[in-house]
Amino acid sequence: MANATPAPASPASPLRIGLIGFGTVGSAVARILTESALHGLELTMIANRGVARKRVEWVSPAVRWTENMDDLLRPEAPVDLVVELVGGLEPAGAWVRRALTAGKSVVTANKKLIAFHGPELEALAREHGCQLLFGAAVAGGIPVIPGLEHGLSGDRITRVEGILNGTCNFILSAMESGAEYAPVLADAQQRGYAEADPSEDVCGWDARAKLAILMRLAMRVHVAPEAIEARPITAVSAVDFAYAAELDCTIRQIARAEQTEAGVAAVVGPMLVPRRSPLAWSTGTENMVVTTGKFGGEVVFSGHGAGGHPTAVAVVSDLVNLAHGLGRAPVAFRAAQVNVEPEVPHYIRFLVRDRPGIVAAIAQALAAEGINLNAILQKPGCCAESLPFVVTVEPCRASALRRAVEAIAQMDFLLEPPLEMQIVEK
Amino acid sequence: MANATPAPASPASPLRIGLIGFGTVGSAVARILTESALHGLELTMIANRGVARKRVEWVSPAVRWTENMDDLLRPEAPVDLVVELVGGLEPAGAWVRRALTAGKSVVTANKKLIAFHGPELEALAREHGCQLLFGAAVAGGIPVIPGLEHGLSGDRITRVEGILNGTCNFILSAMESGAEYAPVLADAQQRGYAEADPSEDVCGWDARAKLAILMRLAMRVHVAPEAIEARPITAVSAVDFAYAAELDCTIRQIARAEQTEAGVAAVVGPMLVPRRSPLAWSTGTENMVVTTGKFGGEVVFSGHGAGGHPTAVAVVSDLVNLAHGLGRAPVAFRAAQVNVEPEVPHYIRFLVRDRPGIVAAIAQALAAEGINLNAILQKPGCCAESLPFVVTVEPCRASALRRAVEAIAQMDFLLEPPLEMQIVEK
Repeated sequence: MANATPAPASPASPLRIGLIGFGTVGSAVARILTESALHGLELTMIANRGVARKRVEWVSPAVRWTENMDDLLRPEAPVDLVVELVGGLEPAGAWVRRALTAGKSVVTANKKLIAFHGPELEALAREHGCQLLFGAAVAGGIPVIPGLEHGLSGDRITRVEGILNGTCNFILSAMESGAEYAPVLADAQQRGYAEADPSEDVCGWDARAKLAILMRLAMRVHVAPEAIEARPITAVSAVDFAYAAELDCTIRQIARAEQTEAGVAAVVGPMLVPRRSPLAWSTGTENMVVTTGKFGGEVVFSGHGAGGHPTAVAVVSDLVNLAHGLGRAPVAFRAAQVNVEPEVPHYIRFLVRDRPGIVAAIAQALAAEGINLNAILQKPGCCAESLPFVVTVEPCRASALRRAVEAIAQMDFLLEPPLEMQIVEK
Repeated sequence: MANATPAPASPASPLRIGLIGFGTVGSAVARILTESALHGLELTMIANRGVARKRVEWVSPAVRWTENMDDLLRPEAPVDLVVELVGGLEPAGAWVRRALTAGKSVVTANKKLIAFHGPELEALAREHGCQLLFGAAVAGGIPVIPGLEHGLSGDRITRVEGILNGTCNFILSAMESGAEYAPVLADAQQRGYAEADPSEDVCGWDARAKLAILMRLAMRVHVAPEAIEARPITAVSAVDFAYAAELDCTIRQIARAEQTEAGVAAVVGPMLVPRRSPLAWSTGTENMVVTTGKFGGEVVFSGHGAGGHPTAVAVVSDLVNLAHGLGRAPVAFRAAQVNVEPEVPHYIRFLVRDRPGIVAAIAQALAAEGINLNAILQKPGCCAESLPFVVTVEPCRASALRRAVEAIAQMDFLLEPPLEMQIVEK
């Protein structure tokens, strides 16, 4: 077993920290390091583009500010450890590689970089006798990654599911009270919870990168994030919440992965969640992760998954670990394909111009794929010209259901494409 | 900063594990070590009283069984690391001291030993260059201790509250459906969830030992467990659940501690918990811990807090950490007194023989202590001969309320001592 723990800092020489990125999270990290004066940690450099407008008074005057990354990354810089908080694949990836190659440990919150290039970067860290820690990359202030690495390594985790994107959770939990998607998104954008282009969040790309990281740590399989199907939340409408409530459910963007003897399943998208499920507990921008272990059963982690200060707590906790010589245990994982589709119940919402024979046509299209109807729900008071109604079906593969739904989508009574969502069982 | 990380096991020499105690948890630990064949860990010895009747076929024949602890603890035994799963202060304490003094790291699930003697034993481990890990001592299979130590060390935790005793949670969540305490306790005893003498659990002594451990790790204060007031759940009755429901609450045994500038507060006992609070989520034998940090806000951990396999997951995770040379960071803490009583709203249930003037007498006794009445609840349909009714009061100190309740308890209309409980706010 390789020992990847770096030499611990001695009392005489604290770890000198070079911080790249002084945005919301970066300034919160600097704030905690300044306020808490943690033993063994010393902030020495801050790098950011256009650094002049970033400079603040409350950071120690001994800290050197620069907008030239090279100042911070060159071997003779007064930096033992690099904190990367810029995000994205490049140039962050190049900076992280350069630091690791110089034998300097890296702490990052960059889920995209870790999801896509984690294995390569971990190998680079091992090769150069340093550490790569990313406790902040998934679910920010909730210690899911440390919990998995230090507290659940004795179990065999077979399933991970969670709410990994605070923006989607804010939007969907706000829609619970009857609002439509577009105004809620606009509100989220105004509050700074959603980007001007919200695609990363609402299309599920952010959540699937985080899910890929959790799958590697928890289930010891590495899948390419793009291999995880991500369905957008954009088609979810207020009427879906009304129908979900009739099924004693709400709607959340769920990321879920499972490993069985048959293979690996993984998907991200809006799903119906029973109100009694822990997954229904999170509201607003909160995150939640539920792991299922062979020996220990279900464990729930919940809290603030994003935001400057919660994410900074995870970054600083990684720094404290490194100051005590506590790195990550090397995790053996295997490359895997997403090759299994579990059979799960589904919800399908149609918007139709009413005429006789619609239910028969839908039932026939489902039957052609071997899918059994479970219930038909139709709220009273809708006009026949534009009638939303819902069908639930017994457990089936998503691909079979999609073929049926595509066939139904061609039928002349449809006013818009049907929306299908998984129903989370339990 | 002292480095307490022991030398990691090399690939050629796995850590040899001596297991003391082959009960429910011990055999689950042996089962996981056998089934999972974790790299770097080798079970070499098992010690238990009357070992002949304990021996099982599925453990490797290379493992040596003994009932003589000295076989396992003498320096030349084939043991690098001792797992203590007997529990209680002695003789477990003597065994742990002996192992640490010999420079052998110890992994234990013994909350009592760690709550009462943790600081002394940690110092002993440091002195002898070995480690003392106890991730299983609080909330079994839920990685609260690793989460605090590795994932929240960058925050400043100001409050810890939780459901730390599965027996009480089983009893109280079963009483939610209208059952009385005595038959539910009998059921819990039959299922093996409660001891023949349930005092440790129902009087709150088990939960306060765990709370003392969490306070040391999370809030960096060491208090003697006996200094934490523990109120029994035995006086809670089915009628209290009915009144709690009217207040949109349920009842749980809550352990809570808080550190403010004024000092340290800590208490264990049955409390009214709003249904919307995470603390109301746990049912059956589940455990839950909610931490509140200055920077990261609330984090919720929930899952199976007890049982052989969940607890064994925590033990084996500690072993995996040690096999990778990952110990605990030394935590600086200060000895503290429980010296603050927060002002909190309370619930008081009376059982009276009805006559005019009762409410006036009660209100007067409360007013004499400066306590304001909030609401009076009385369910219809009870007979005047034995009338339960409830008073809620505005936030006040528990000691002031207790003086008022003691005065009321002397009044001639009381049929049994009043029951007062805190109401958890939020």
